[in-house]
Amino acid sequence: MLSLLSRQGIAYCSASPRVLPRNLPKVWAAAGLRYSSSSPTAVVFMNMGGPAKLEETHDFLYELFSDNDLIPISKKYQRTIAKYIAKFRTPKIEKQYKEIGGGSPIRRWSEFQSSKVCEILDSISPETAPHKPYVAFRYAKPLTHETYEQLLKDNVRRAVAFTQYPQFSYSTTGSSLNELWRKIKELDPERKITWSTIDRWPDNEGLTNAFAGNIKQKLQEFPAQVRDKVVILFSAHSLPMDVINTGDAYPAEVAATVRKVMHKLNFSNPYRLIWQSQVGPKPWLGAQTSDIVEFLAPKEKGLLLVPIAFTSDHIETLFELDLEVIGESNYKDKIKRCESLNGNATFIEGMANLVKEHLQNGELYSTQLPLDFTLGKSNDPITDLNKVFGYHTKK
Amino acid sequence: MLSLLSRQGIAYCSASPRVLPRNLPKVWAAAGLRYSSSSPTAVVFMNMGGPAKLEETHDFLYELFSDNDLIPISKKYQRTIAKYIAKFRTPKIEKQYKEIGGGSPIRRWSEFQSSKVCEILDSISPETAPHKPYVAFRYAKPLTHETYEQLLKDNVRRAVAFTQYPQFSYSTTGSSLNELWRKIKELDPERKITWSTIDRWPDNEGLTNAFAGNIKQKLQEFPAQVRDKVVILFSAHSLPMDVINTGDAYPAEVAATVRKVMHKLNFSNPYRLIWQSQVGPKPWLGAQTSDIVEFLAPKEKGLLLVPIAFTSDHIETLFELDLEVIGESNYKDKIKRCESLNGNATFIEGMANLVKEHLQNGELYSTQLPLDFTLGKSNDPITDLNKVFGYHTKK
Repeated sequence: MLSLLSRQGIAYCSASPRVLPRNLPKVWAAAGLRYSSSSPTAVVFMNMGGPAKLEETHDFLYELFSDNDLIPISKKYQRTIAKYIAKFRTPKIEKQYKEIGGGSPIRRWSEFQSSKVCEILDSISPETAPHKPYVAFRYAKPLTHETYEQLLKDNVRRAVAFTQYPQFSYSTTGSSLNELWRKIKELDPERKITWSTIDRWPDNEGLTNAFAGNIKQKLQEFPAQVRDKVVILFSAHSLPMDVINTGDAYPAEVAATVRKVMHKLNFSNPYRLIWQSQVGPKPWLGAQTSDIVEFLAPKEKGLLLVPIAFTSDHIETLFELDLEVIGESNYKDKIKRCESLNGNATFIEGMANLVKEHLQNGELYSTQLPLDFTLGKSNDPITDLNKVFGYHTKK
Repeated sequence: MLSLLSRQGIAYCSASPRVLPRNLPKVWAAAGLRYSSSSPTAVVFMNMGGPAKLEETHDFLYELFSDNDLIPISKKYQRTIAKYIAKFRTPKIEKQYKEIGGGSPIRRWSEFQSSKVCEILDSISPETAPHKPYVAFRYAKPLTHETYEQLLKDNVRRAVAFTQYPQFSYSTTGSSLNELWRKIKELDPERKITWSTIDRWPDNEGLTNAFAGNIKQKLQEFPAQVRDKVVILFSAHSLPMDVINTGDAYPAEVAATVRKVMHKLNFSNPYRLIWQSQVGPKPWLGAQTSDIVEFLAPKEKGLLLVPIAFTSDHIETLFELDLEVIGESNYKDKIKRCESLNGNATFIEGMANLVKEHLQNGELYSTQLPLDFTLGKSNDPITDLNKVFGYHTKK
């Protein structure tokens, strides 16, 4: 399909990557080209991942602490130090995964969600069908390079890197995109695959409708006379202040999700955006979830914790919120945790619509993304987004 | 007017303040009561204020550093320390006010805006007319107690405390409301005036339309070929991390304003929310405006600074942004600052609509406010919002 393009010698192919038209698929369509059934449109769910089995915990931690985008330890000794930290922390973290059932459900949910999204896409976007679901994790199987190899085997020529962090941070989505770029250079130097990315979607309709629906449902579990007094505590993974202070987009985008959800709830309840999972001695963005829950629990009629920056269950909900923050509270009877999105149909439909729009409007990446990469700091990053996304097949 | 209410012996008057009906004015209307022309509805613009003349600078600083809600220095020695700091800082700050024309324009703008809002209200909300504009500053003339005395002289019985900080912080709006409560107790123990408050309005239509309009207009001043590459830097006054870490509502509400403005601009440009005016040695919320401008200016085609948490010009725009951040930059030609809202008609109309809705839906304060006061920490605060707002006339 793409070879046709170069045979027709369409002018922009030789243009500077910076001025590649943003509406590439529209150009394809204008050239009479179609997505081909022998080459599916790949929808690649990118996320951090988690160990599906206990014995994957060490490797997961090693990959995580090796990531200079996420944890900028050292330009030179990152992997050496990661090896040490992973070894040291594995027993503790293994125990946590054991307590939540022997592993992270994130792979199972990601595979389910992405396959459902592709099913819906085949029906609502026949012009880009067939769609094939993939998962690419940053720290667990399937790792980005494994998925990339599969994409090539499957004869994929058009792929969407769909971040499963609805709110952009350089340390999460940025890291996944940097890894993608390293794997493009390594595994696909001929640029068989044309990539675009959905790099943020904090106020997506399906996402925020699903959150609002889950909150309404969980509020029903509180006694009727306290229901409208329950404090909704939106809890997002925190970041170190030295990341926040680079101008990372994350806190404002998480706040955007929260605001849209509260609009959908018609501001029925008091609420607050708070931050969880701080580790280490450095200052992180607060208020901290555990502090606020401890402070408010004795004073309020009820607290509802809503994990607002993850799209499925994982250790931060199942262990940290459920077993630690709630489980160890003296007031656990008046604290509940909202369902994670997991298999939520509204959520999945919202994602399918988002991918459809993305494919149809031909956007390669958002208007924000270049600024994110200008402000973000790391070891081996993307230096030019236009080299990563768009049509680059060598003639 | 209110005395009629008590003569009719309406039951809720003796009910616990916590269960006072939130729809008080509706109840009045149901009782056949009307706002009276001999007793105007007061619309009280609350803000921090600024010295209108140079010689008011010392007193302004003294009041500011005396405010334990804003700057929690010491429960006991706040005023003594404030006296010292004010004396020490006055020459420097006087010089800054001199450079921006000899004083702060905030009083002039507040008086203009509030009178226009009341003019519009008389026409769009005749049932609550006449409306009379007031300004109550926290640190400059007219101070809250001066305005309160005027309200009593003017025979006001119904007043709306309308915060001019669109995004709530305990250290700004919270401080103004705490001061109001202290003055109610001091000057109006018989509770002649029934108060309600508009305590936040971060995504008000008029506010965000006005910002979006001003941004569009200012973008026109950049060369056409770079216009859509200009980075929009929304700059809000920062807060110390120890305030942020109490769970203050401010950062998420500022982000809500930013998001709504960007939606109105259809995300035409890259943008970022950043934070200005950090002082002192303690850690504050970043990224800092001056750092980001310095970092981005050499790299980007253009920067547009948008003061997003103030409703008129003041020292933080006219001095800090215009003369320091832009004026002292080596790249000043490619940095512009968006107009402040000041006399913007869209903005003023938005405020009038907001007050109208507030009067008509009978809300005494937002669903969020009790939580703000539970989380906020200070010396002499409101302990029960229901004692402050609503109908409390002693029989």
